[in-house]
Amino acid sequence: MNDQCTNEIDASIDLWAEMRSRAEKIARDEPLIAHVVNDFVIMRETFAEALGARIAHKLSRTSKEYETFSALAREAFAGNPRALIQAQNDMRATAERDPACDSVLTPFLWFKGFLALSAYRVSHYFWNAGRRHIAHYLQSHISETFSVDIHPAAKIGCGILLDHATGFVVGETAVIENNVSILHAVTLGGTGKTRGDRHPKVRSGVLIGAGAKILGNIEIGRCAKIGAGSVVLDDVPAHTTVAGVPAKIVGAATEEEPCLDMNHRLS
Amino acid sequence: MNDQCTNEIDASIDLWAEMRSRAEKIARDEPLIAHVVNDFVIMRETFAEALGARIAHKLSRTSKEYETFSALAREAFAGNPRALIQAQNDMRATAERDPACDSVLTPFLWFKGFLALSAYRVSHYFWNAGRRHIAHYLQSHISETFSVDIHPAAKIGCGILLDHATGFVVGETAVIENNVSILHAVTLGGTGKTRGDRHPKVRSGVLIGAGAKILGNIEIGRCAKIGAGSVVLDDVPAHTTVAGVPAKIVGAATEEEPCLDMNHRLS
Amino acid sequence: MNDQCTNEIDASIDLWAEMRSRAEKIARDEPLIAHVVNDFVIMRETFAEALGARIAHKLSRTSKEYETFSALAREAFAGNPRALIQAQNDMRATAERDPACDSVLTPFLWFKGFLALSAYRVSHYFWNAGRRHIAHYLQSHISETFSVDIHPAAKIGCGILLDHATGFVVGETAVIENNVSILHAVTLGGTGKTRGDRHPKVRSGVLIGAGAKILGNIEIGRCAKIGAGSVVLDDVPAHTTVAGVPAKIVGAATEEEPCLDMNHRLS
Amino acid sequence: MNDQCTNEIDASIDLWAEMRSRAEKIARDEPLIAHVVNDFVIMRETFAEALGARIAHKLSRTSKEYETFSALAREAFAGNPRALIQAQNDMRATAERDPACDSVLTPFLWFKGFLALSAYRVSHYFWNAGRRHIAHYLQSHISETFSVDIHPAAKIGCGILLDHATGFVVGETAVIENNVSILHAVTLGGTGKTRGDRHPKVRSGVLIGAGAKILGNIEIGRCAKIGAGSVVLDDVPAHTTVAGVPAKIVGAATEEEPCLDMNHRLS
Amino acid sequence: MNDQCTNEIDASIDLWAEMRSRAEKIARDEPLIAHVVNDFVIMRETFAEALGARIAHKLSRTSKEYETFSALAREAFAGNPRALIQAQNDMRATAERDPACDSVLTPFLWFKGFLALSAYRVSHYFWNAGRRHIAHYLQSHISETFSVDIHPAAKIGCGILLDHATGFVVGETAVIENNVSILHAVTLGGTGKTRGDRHPKVRSGVLIGAGAKILGNIEIGRCAKIGAGSVVLDDVPAHTTVAGVPAKIVGAATEEEPCLDMNHRLS
Amino acid sequence: MNDQCTNEIDASIDLWAEMRSRAEKIARDEPLIAHVVNDFVIMRETFAEALGARIAHKLSRTSKEYETFSALAREAFAGNPRALIQAQNDMRATAERDPACDSVLTPFLWFKGFLALSAYRVSHYFWNAGRRHIAHYLQSHISETFSVDIHPAAKIGCGILLDHATGFVVGETAVIENNVSILHAVTLGGTGKTRGDRHPKVRSGVLIGAGAKILGNIEIGRCAKIGAGSVVLDDVPAHTTVAGVPAKIVGAATEEEPCLDMNHRLS
Repeated sequence: MNDQCTNEIDASIDLWAEMRSRAEKIARDEPLIAHVVNDFVIMRETFAEALGARIAHKLSRTSKEYETFSALAREAFAGNPRALIQAQNDMRATAERDPACDSVLTPFLWFKGFLALSAYRVSHYFWNAGRRHIAHYLQSHISETFSVDIHPAAKIGCGILLDHATGFVVGETAVIENNVSILHAVTLGGTGKTRGDRHPKVRSGVLIGAGAKILGNIEIGRCAKIGAGSVVLDDVPAHTTVAGVPAKIVGAATEEEPCLDMNHRLS
Repeated sequence: MNDQCTNEIDASIDLWAEMRSRAEKIARDEPLIAHVVNDFVIMRETFAEALGARIAHKLSRTSKEYETFSALAREAFAGNPRALIQAQNDMRATAERDPACDSVLTPFLWFKGFLALSAYRVSHYFWNAGRRHIAHYLQSHISETFSVDIHPAAKIGCGILLDHATGFVVGETAVIENNVSILHAVTLGGTGKTRGDRHPKVRSGVLIGAGAKILGNIEIGRCAKIGAGSVVLDDVPAHTTVAGVPAKIVGAATEEEPCLDMNHRLS
Repeated sequence: MNDQCTNEIDASIDLWAEMRSRAEKIARDEPLIAHVVNDFVIMRETFAEALGARIAHKLSRTSKEYETFSALAREAFAGNPRALIQAQNDMRATAERDPACDSVLTPFLWFKGFLALSAYRVSHYFWNAGRRHIAHYLQSHISETFSVDIHPAAKIGCGILLDHATGFVVGETAVIENNVSILHAVTLGGTGKTRGDRHPKVRSGVLIGAGAKILGNIEIGRCAKIGAGSVVLDDVPAHTTVAGVPAKIVGAATEEEPCLDMNHRLS
Repeated sequence: MNDQCTNEIDASIDLWAEMRSRAEKIARDEPLIAHVVNDFVIMRETFAEALGARIAHKLSRTSKEYETFSALAREAFAGNPRALIQAQNDMRATAERDPACDSVLTPFLWFKGFLALSAYRVSHYFWNAGRRHIAHYLQSHISETFSVDIHPAAKIGCGILLDHATGFVVGETAVIENNVSILHAVTLGGTGKTRGDRHPKVRSGVLIGAGAKILGNIEIGRCAKIGAGSVVLDDVPAHTTVAGVPAKIVGAATEEEPCLDMNHRLS
Repeated sequence: MNDQCTNEIDASIDLWAEMRSRAEKIARDEPLIAHVVNDFVIMRETFAEALGARIAHKLSRTSKEYETFSALAREAFAGNPRALIQAQNDMRATAERDPACDSVLTPFLWFKGFLALSAYRVSHYFWNAGRRHIAHYLQSHISETFSVDIHPAAKIGCGILLDHATGFVVGETAVIENNVSILHAVTLGGTGKTRGDRHPKVRSGVLIGAGAKILGNIEIGRCAKIGAGSVVLDDVPAHTTVAGVPAKIVGAATEEEPCLDMNHRLS
Repeated sequence: MNDQCTNEIDASIDLWAEMRSRAEKIARDEPLIAHVVNDFVIMRETFAEALGARIAHKLSRTSKEYETFSALAREAFAGNPRALIQAQNDMRATAERDPACDSVLTPFLWFKGFLALSAYRVSHYFWNAGRRHIAHYLQSHISETFSVDIHPAAKIGCGILLDHATGFVVGETAVIENNVSILHAVTLGGTGKTRGDRHPKVRSGVLIGAGAKILGNIEIGRCAKIGAGSVVLDDVPAHTTVAGVPAKIVGAATEEEPCLDMNHRLS
């Protein structure tokens, strides 16, 4: 498995061109929603500007809020262009793994999982810059808008598929490496009220089923598979499938990279 | 059990008259929210117009979006008037089964489960018409607004009670027949990343408890009962209760039609 | 354990002063979000006015809705000032127990759990006053905005921490006493369609883990702990930990007051 | 001529009842605009609340502005209830003198002259209270919304008909006594840049034609008539008609009270 | 002079096609305002729909108002399609006579004179239908939005150029025939407070200069010219130029059709 | 008379600091409008950003429009920083000459004349850049918002006081040099429908009274004074006062620089 983010420059050129081309087709085919693709793709000059506008539109209800979120996205993407590469890898991952997704433009336009994750990447920039009020402001709007609550301090890699996304909760010291697929209603939660390292570490290649609760500073090994509805309180070895409340090992993960196959069967 | 949608013409006359009458009483009794019943019931000429306006108001944040959603609802209800009958049956089902619901007007005004389902019916029309971008546009706004994510291709009958509704997820090839009651946080999910038939089929009379995850192309037989928090990975015979993670048969469903009794006890 | 709400007068003076002082610091440090603290703290004369404005802003998308929610909050807080004391105790509880919360201002500004709970307190006032349409109007906007669905008739004490909050559902006859900590996706649900007393009673000191479903007119005893993802269908004795689907006793609660320690380990 | 404001208590009772009755008729007859009369008359408890809401709606484009203008109107009408009597006299005067106005409700709902004048009365309260920034804030929104620019320090009586109103300009030290009728595009302007008393004084009973410019600290005597398009730079004796650029006396005013007859013929 | 409205069918086809073609060029050349031409031209199916949307957008500040004005325009244009032909003739007249106007699309997009006049045509339909509250509702929004106050009962022909338009006032019994050019700040006013026929009748071919006040039931004969700033109180013979306060005949109108030549010189 | 724009660098530093200092005082003194000074002064980093935000807020009713106008102002002020110096000189001129204006912040916050003029400066930039659709888009919004209609091709210097401003109209080939004071309802209009040079040229030091109509390619000489309500059709010599309809010379201008003294007396 290649768990690196795709080479930056090539990717950004191709993907943005593909987005524009697909957007133009939608504008021609469906005049009723041409304003959406025009406003957020066709009239934008760069992917950064487009993504910032899309996030700001979703998070805001007033012109004042729109302006604020636009300015924050602009600052974050300028200060950390890597977030844009991560977002593009998320888009490709979604198009490749989600059978209900037919192009890279689809998550950008219609999937709140992708948009919530991209907005988290903005909040993460401000957290790292020590501007925690800004980070919380973003987090709270992301949670209200998308029902996705990711602490801005959490560390999340690229190539993430956040499917359906409603109810996703990620705590302050959680880590998600590259190429992970996560269904809705998943929790990467803490335990206890101490402020230290208290949330899960999810390695590359993992697939987490809908509604799974993973709690505490535990490790979900590479290419493990977490069954839907599981409550995981202990480390999960690599290439292993766990399920149940509390979760127990039910066998080896039958796929080499569960995140790619999206097979939620337990055996 | 009569699992057909109620005769169309009679139903539509009665229900719309009842809604208007109840709305007028609210307008008199509670001036502070008279604008709600005026805008969405009293000033509307038909149930179709009222429902379209209610959906459009909920899904939109700008005049532009309001106009777009209004036009889409108008087109869908004109093209498939059956959706209106289905919605009316949903309203009656909700009033009959939900002890917190005191009239058919209540779900129309206040229950996001009903509104999300009605909005899905609009998206379903466009999916069937081959206009998938429009369908996705609707799906994404429904998911952000109501935290209810129903793929526009899913097939859903009438007489559906979607209680509380937050976190409901339904996949592309899922089927829900008439007269089914579903609590919040339920998933009718797929497994794998192939594009074929991969989601559950739920027959008439079924009751699905809060947080149940039903995954894969399996059948939930007529009048079965799914315990709250269950993870169902295999077929469930008719008139049977299952529970647990993974779900196992725990007995016969004690009610003739679990969807009507809303009894979540497992025995 | 002191399970009373903190003495009213002292608390209200201190907390409002502390909020204003922290808000002024944010206004100085982060001009981009100064408008938030200005609009909802600094320019307000009382805590009641500030909380009403914050709630009204969150629940509304139009000036008309804003005006309506403002008027309702004003009326409720004037008619039942105790709701303000309860809200202040919630803020202190959140600041004390949630390691991701650094001050009493944080939940007021950024935590939808706190805001949803405070808005419920407004709806509860109107329910008690026999104005059920108003109460439902509030409930429906709370559910859409925050993905938190609390029936306005439910009885909820003070010192409540509602962490992350997405997907929280509380039924009509549920009771939550003082000093309880509840994670997201928790259900206090009913069973059956009779209209009587049919929802859980949660005593003081309880901790309820993420995704737990507690169903029926059962009692969760003082200082009990409910494991994440549990489905609880029977009474839980005081100072006991339960877990599983269905939940079983797994031992004594290891903390004296689980709600304070927020330890989700089961043993 | 009775140039006093109508007795306060009787007037206020009758007029508010009449407004409500007429509003209810409109709500029944024209469902498409029922929301206007509901929002600004029927759902309001007092004339003060209704007028404040109407002004705030017109002057604002955001919820924030609406809230601000509502609060200002509330404070002004509570601090100076006489402004309400003046507004009611303006409504009666308009209904009596303007042949295009068929009831006292008409100016309240549809005439920007009346609304601009009432909003000025709010600004005037704050000017007198020494809160000049608030007064200017109101003045600027009135000018942008209605194209009516009245300095908040100007003194204006009751029974004023401001017909069409576009382009009306009144300077800081101008005075308009009771029972004056003024067409659109009229200026009561100053001359020079000294800060002293430098604007016209208009006595009772006067009629000022469209586009008249009256400049400097001059007096327009009781029951004088100013021809349309005139430029008046000198005192005008009582019961006299002036016209022209610059204005000259063209005869005695043929009506006893020109403000009532609205006759713009010059002889 | 041909003072008939241009043949309807040919005109409507050509003009709408020309508008769309020009709009598409703007969308390509200026992405920043592509949303304007997309929303109001390209995505619309008919000229009627486009004009209704343009008017509704301009007159409204909320979704509710937008929906109301859209519905009113739809009803008026369906009930009186001639209003659309008149509007198209206004667009052609503007493009032909105004040197600052380079195409028929320009007034549709950018000239408030044209938009106010078209909105008046909607109000006129409702006035004629005896729905006077609707007519006043429209008039008041037109006056606030465009500073143009045309009584809905006034009769106005086609081929009208309303240049700049600010401050234009037209009374209840005024008549403007086809092919008239009117500058800003013009008044066609009444005199007296009787309700009968009391406003000017303006015949074809007339040019009225900026700021002219024309008062009373007088006739402005065909192809007359009214000097800027004039106050006209008496009939003006055909092909004559008048000027001054009060206006006097200064000579024959030097152009055959002053409305076409737009020459404001008096000799 | 010094008719140059004030030295750029010194001015910009001083004025922006003074604006901020005064804004902070208002924020402290008047919490109800603190949001205005915060949003448009205190939270902005530069005068350019502040002025762009103020203009964009005034011209827009939707987030989309706000974003568009913000982007246009940013581009214009970056491409032609001289426009900012001109605006600052306008602010100083207003504070010096208008007795109702007590500081340089006042026109920025509350005077639509200043804001309309500054917005024109943005449109003028785009006109000069050959982007005429953008220029017209701005012009139309300025005209609707402020009732000020300045053709984007007109040339206007600095130190302009536009008092009250309602109804101001300036044609395509008009020129206004530095240090001119203009009252409301003034027209600098064209004559004829040829496209050539057809509008007035106004030299430095001129004062134009309310409602004056100046028509054709004529010259208003340095330090001339135009009486209110005049209709000027011929050149006016320097240091001369004209008045009347049509305007005639009534004497020498009694002030050395009429624009500074604002004396509207004719002798």
